[in-house]
Amino acid sequence: MKEIAYIDGAFIDLMEYAVQLEDRGYMFGDGISEIVRFYDGKCFALRRHLAHYRRSMKELRIPITDTDVELVQLFQEMIEKSGAANGTIYLQLTRGTAKRAHEFPMPSLPHLNAILRDTPVDADMLEHGIKVAPIEDIRWLRCDIGTLNRLGNILAVDDAHHAFADEALLWRKDTGHITEAARGNFFIVKDGILWTHPADNLILNGVTRSVIIDRIAKPLDLTVVERPFTLDFAKKAEEAFVTSTENEIVPVVAIGSDAVDDGKRGDVTKRLQDAYHTLTARGIDSDEEEEEKIEVKNKTFGA
Amino acid sequence: MKEIAYIDGAFIDLMEYAVQLEDRGYMFGDGISEIVRFYDGKCFALRRHLAHYRRSMKELRIPITDTDVELVQLFQEMIEKSGAANGTIYLQLTRGTAKRAHEFPMPSLPHLNAILRDTPVDADMLEHGIKVAPIEDIRWLRCDIGTLNRLGNILAVDDAHHAFADEALLWRKDTGHITEAARGNFFIVKDGILWTHPADNLILNGVTRSVIIDRIAKPLDLTVVERPFTLDFAKKAEEAFVTSTENEIVPVVAIGSDAVDDGKRGDVTKRLQDAYHTLTARGIDSDEEEEEKIEVKNKTFGA
Repeated sequence: MKEIAYIDGAFIDLMEYAVQLEDRGYMFGDGISEIVRFYDGKCFALRRHLAHYRRSMKELRIPITDTDVELVQLFQEMIEKSGAANGTIYLQLTRGTAKRAHEFPMPSLPHLNAILRDTPVDADMLEHGIKVAPIEDIRWLRCDIGTLNRLGNILAVDDAHHAFADEALLWRKDTGHITEAARGNFFIVKDGILWTHPADNLILNGVTRSVIIDRIAKPLDLTVVERPFTLDFAKKAEEAFVTSTENEIVPVVAIGSDAVDDGKRGDVTKRLQDAYHTLTARGIDSDEEEEEKIEVKNKTFGA
Repeated sequence: MKEIAYIDGAFIDLMEYAVQLEDRGYMFGDGISEIVRFYDGKCFALRRHLAHYRRSMKELRIPITDTDVELVQLFQEMIEKSGAANGTIYLQLTRGTAKRAHEFPMPSLPHLNAILRDTPVDADMLEHGIKVAPIEDIRWLRCDIGTLNRLGNILAVDDAHHAFADEALLWRKDTGHITEAARGNFFIVKDGILWTHPADNLILNGVTRSVIIDRIAKPLDLTVVERPFTLDFAKKAEEAFVTSTENEIVPVVAIGSDAVDDGKRGDVTKRLQDAYHTLTARGIDSDEEEEEKIEVKNKTFGA
C-alpha cells in the first residue's frame, strides 16, 4: 500500500516538497507528535491519544486551531482513503512558519501534518522479544511532552545498536534510576508485581502504558507499582517488556549481556499481550466515554 | 533587501515549499545549525565557525558530504547575490529524508540549507543593554552541540518574557550554577576579572565567546576564569554581558529585579565591544591561518 500523507487541509504525495525552510518544526523541532494505531479500520484508544496530544500542545504553549472532531474526521478519511484495515497514523503539529527567532511568532498559525502507513505489528518480535542496552538518559527534563526534539532518543538508539542491542534502556546518572526505553515505556515483573517509572517529567506517559495500568492490570489481578528502580533491580526481574502504540507490548529478553530470567517471553507478559489484543479488537473509547458521562453525572449531583 | 535562501544546490524563494515531511530535521530536529556574521562583505571568524559546524556534525554522527571550500564559496555567492555589506548567514544541515524511524537512515544524504539576511547589529542594545531573568536550565546534557533541538531555549525565552525580561539566564538546579543565556554565552566582570562557565557539555561554546578568550582578553590585560558560578555570585558582579555571533557583546544591566552595579554598560564591557569591532573590521582568519601554519611547522620539526 502507498502511504497517505496530509498537511494543512490537503492530501499530498509523501515525497512532495510541502514544508518551508522557516517552519519552526524545521528550524527548532518546535512542535509535537502523536502516533495512533488503527485495528480493523478503527483507531484504538483515540480519546486517550487526543488528550495526550492536547496536553503536549498546552505544555508547549501552541495555540489550538483545530478541534478533536476535525482530527477524528481526518483520521477516518485517511483510513478510508488507504483501504487498509490495520496500520499507524503519525500526527505532527508545528508552531508555524515565521522569520527565525526564538520568540513565539505572533500571531502563530500552526501546521498540522499526518502520515498513514499500514505498518503491521511485528508478530515475531511480540513472541521472541528484544535485547536492550543500558544507555545514560541525557535528555531534557520535560520528557513528559511528546515533542519533535528527539535527538536524545535517536542517539541512544544508535548507541544501543553499537552495543548489539535492539533498543536503549535509559537510566539517569544522578539517581541511577531507569526511566524508560528510547521508544516506549519500560516495565518489569518482580515477585509477580508490575513495576514501572512514575509518570513524572522524566518519561513520556504513553497511551499503551496507561491502558495497561488503568484497564488491563486489575482484571488480570496484577498489582502495578509506579516507582523508580535501578538497573540492578531490573536485572533480577522475572520478566521485562517495553510498551508503545507502534509495537504494543514487546518482551525484553536480555538487558545488556544478562538474560532476563530464562531469556524467553514470560507468562505475565503473554497474558498482558493477550488482554491487550482483546482490547484492541473491542476498542475502549465507547466504554470510556460512558464512564466519563457517569462521572460527570455523579459530580453534577454531588454524589 | 530580500533575504537569500538556498537548499541542496539551488537558490530558492524563502517562502517556497522546499522540505519534505519526512526530512529528519522536520520529524526529529535531527540536524545542526551555525550562524555566521559578515562585515563589509566578509564573513568574520569563518575558520572558527566551520570548525564549530564540523564538530557538531561529528557529535551527531552526520556524514560529511560537503567541503569547507564549497561552504566558503556558497557564503561568498550568497553575499554577492544579496549586495549587502553586513548581515548574517544561517546555515543548517539535517540528516536527510527517510521513512520515519529513530535509527539513522542508511545511506543518509544530508540536506544543507542557508538563509542570508542583512540583519543589522542593534546599536541601541549594545549601548543600553538588556535585562535577563533567571530561568531553570532543563536542557539535555549535550548543550555543546549546535543542534536543531531548541525547545529548552525557546521555552526559556518565553518564560523570560513573562518575567518582563529580554533574555533568559539559565541555571542548573542540581548545582545552582549559571550555564549561559538562552541565545548566547554569559560573562560577568568581578574584581576586574572575567568569569564565564567552562566549555563543557552544559554550554554551546560560541565563536564570540572563544574569540574574546583567545584574541581579546590578553591584549586588554584581562584575566579570564572559566569556572562555574552561582546566581548570587553573578548578582554581585560589577558588569555582565551576553555574547553571540548575532548580537555580539550585549551588556546585561539587570538580573531579575536587581540592577547590575549601577544598571549601565560597564567600562570593561565597552572596551571589549570596541576591541571586538576592531577585530570584525580587520578579520581574524588570515592571522589564524598563519598561526596554524607556524604551529604545524613547529610540530613537524619537533620544536
